[in-house]
Amino acid sequence: MASADSPLYVGIDIGGTSVKFGVCDARNTVHAESTLPTHPTDGPEALVTRVDAAVTTLLSELGKSKADVHAAGAGAPGPLNHVSGVIYEAPNLPGWKNVPLRDLLHEKLQVPVVVENDANAAAYGESVAGAGCDANTVVMVTLGTGVGGGIIVGDLLIRGEHSSGGEIGHTVIEADGRQCACGQAGCLEQYVSATALVRDFMQTQKQMVPQREATQTAWTAAEISGSDDELAQQCWDRFCRYLAIGCLNLTRILDPDCIIIGGGVANAGDRLLGPLKEHFDDVNWHLTADKPNIVPAKLGSRAGLVGASALARAKFADAT
Amino acid sequence: MASADSPLYVGIDIGGTSVKFGVCDARNTVHAESTLPTHPTDGPEALVTRVDAAVTTLLSELGKSKADVHAAGAGAPGPLNHVSGVIYEAPNLPGWKNVPLRDLLHEKLQVPVVVENDANAAAYGESVAGAGCDANTVVMVTLGTGVGGGIIVGDLLIRGEHSSGGEIGHTVIEADGRQCACGQAGCLEQYVSATALVRDFMQTQKQMVPQREATQTAWTAAEISGSDDELAQQCWDRFCRYLAIGCLNLTRILDPDCIIIGGGVANAGDRLLGPLKEHFDDVNWHLTADKPNIVPAKLGSRAGLVGASALARAKFADAT
Repeated sequence: MASADSPLYVGIDIGGTSVKFGVCDARNTVHAESTLPTHPTDGPEALVTRVDAAVTTLLSELGKSKADVHAAGAGAPGPLNHVSGVIYEAPNLPGWKNVPLRDLLHEKLQVPVVVENDANAAAYGESVAGAGCDANTVVMVTLGTGVGGGIIVGDLLIRGEHSSGGEIGHTVIEADGRQCACGQAGCLEQYVSATALVRDFMQTQKQMVPQREATQTAWTAAEISGSDDELAQQCWDRFCRYLAIGCLNLTRILDPDCIIIGGGVANAGDRLLGPLKEHFDDVNWHLTADKPNIVPAKLGSRAGLVGASALARAKFADAT
Repeated sequence: MASADSPLYVGIDIGGTSVKFGVCDARNTVHAESTLPTHPTDGPEALVTRVDAAVTTLLSELGKSKADVHAAGAGAPGPLNHVSGVIYEAPNLPGWKNVPLRDLLHEKLQVPVVVENDANAAAYGESVAGAGCDANTVVMVTLGTGVGGGIIVGDLLIRGEHSSGGEIGHTVIEADGRQCACGQAGCLEQYVSATALVRDFMQTQKQMVPQREATQTAWTAAEISGSDDELAQQCWDRFCRYLAIGCLNLTRILDPDCIIIGGGVANAGDRLLGPLKEHFDDVNWHLTADKPNIVPAKLGSRAGLVGASALARAKFADAT
């Protein structure tokens, strides 16, 4: 438990379906946490009001009040401006356009608020309190429906000059390769997202085993990664090789000591990490033997709220 | 001229053929500079002795002595360890192996010395006193025999955890693409170095216009970029497109406000920058309109010594 004089921080992780939030201390320990459905179509004000009420309840259960909270951080889907705390537009939050999230939260919670891209917040969480806490240069790659990520060098979150750094899923690994919804061709996301894996597998089935077509939609990324089916294994191996190339590019540019693999597909655990590391060694140069540790994420769905809380602390700890 | 109380810094840029060095002030103005042949096979001690003597001469021409020098920086080919200042091995400096360059220079010059990878030093020079001096996140891409680079975020040179960050030439833009001498396949360097350009052009000639074969070797990168020949123009355009994809990957990861193009091939000037920017707009996503300024390097062959001097200042300015 937090002592009476230990400042508390609220971390909020806004997703398209649910909002996770918690009360953390300055050492990134989560003292209480909860979840609410997002209901994005009710609008941001309604959500912020519900989150504020729920945070107040969480605090009272800890014998605390808003007066014990030093600052709050919120991770949200973007694109957004982390300086102004405005979400420009978020495909996962229908109807949200130019939402001044920072100001809305500040008005309700009555503490300083920092707003960050959700992928950056999760990466920051893993870097300060998860799989990267012993490393200095940390890259997180999140494999879900899409491919996200975040980069931390020392204490510095690499946001870029227009809040769009760390877009690992949209680095090109195949010049003029597969078309991506972002407008580019050959994006990593088109090769190593859950979506891409399932699509790849279905196409293989179509081409090579037409009689299986009826059962195609039953396959998910998790099933493909764990299947004994030879075609599934080939798809999975190709997936791991492409991911190794994505990790390689991050290594050549940033030379991290730690690459954290998170997101739904990372639940495959050693079935992912094993072949990924083998392919990395295979595609990696031979000029130096140094390479990053490639490790699974540790914080799971808590990474975003822990990171948001830690970013609030990093920004406002001295502003007493 | 430097005033009597203005501390001076010595910048040294060691190349395979020549060593450039100069005396700079804290504002990165070069007050005097000179060049010596490297003669690498004479060994590092001989070179350091000659540089020390030449620097002493430069200083006396300025009415100064070593006592006026606050610190020195040296850029050198790597791989090297910037912490220990040891060059592990350098293909361009035959016979140099585990050379304690920092200690050798310190012993002669009698000032604190910082040693940095030559590409990083040049990028740092351009970022503080050249084409990137108004930008915050700066990436430099150097197009020569190979492709090098350097990354600066704010005041931070992104060296990586094993001194091998910023290896832009060895990011993969074509999975399982052209074989690179580094051991990887599909490295950017295999598509956008001067070497790659000339090789591409020769291969095109071979395949399509066999009668030109005899004159092939007369073509250089500069000639190809400036030629009216249709095949040369196609090669050059492809070169610019691949470079755009390399710049795109840096943009997705780092979101810089400035990408500086340097090196011999960049002497093509607008013949390079024009198509490069067009291809960048073409391959770039449409999620945001923000993009980096892509600009030519400003400092030319001085970038390395200016950067080395500035790195010495950044490290030792407060150590009075």
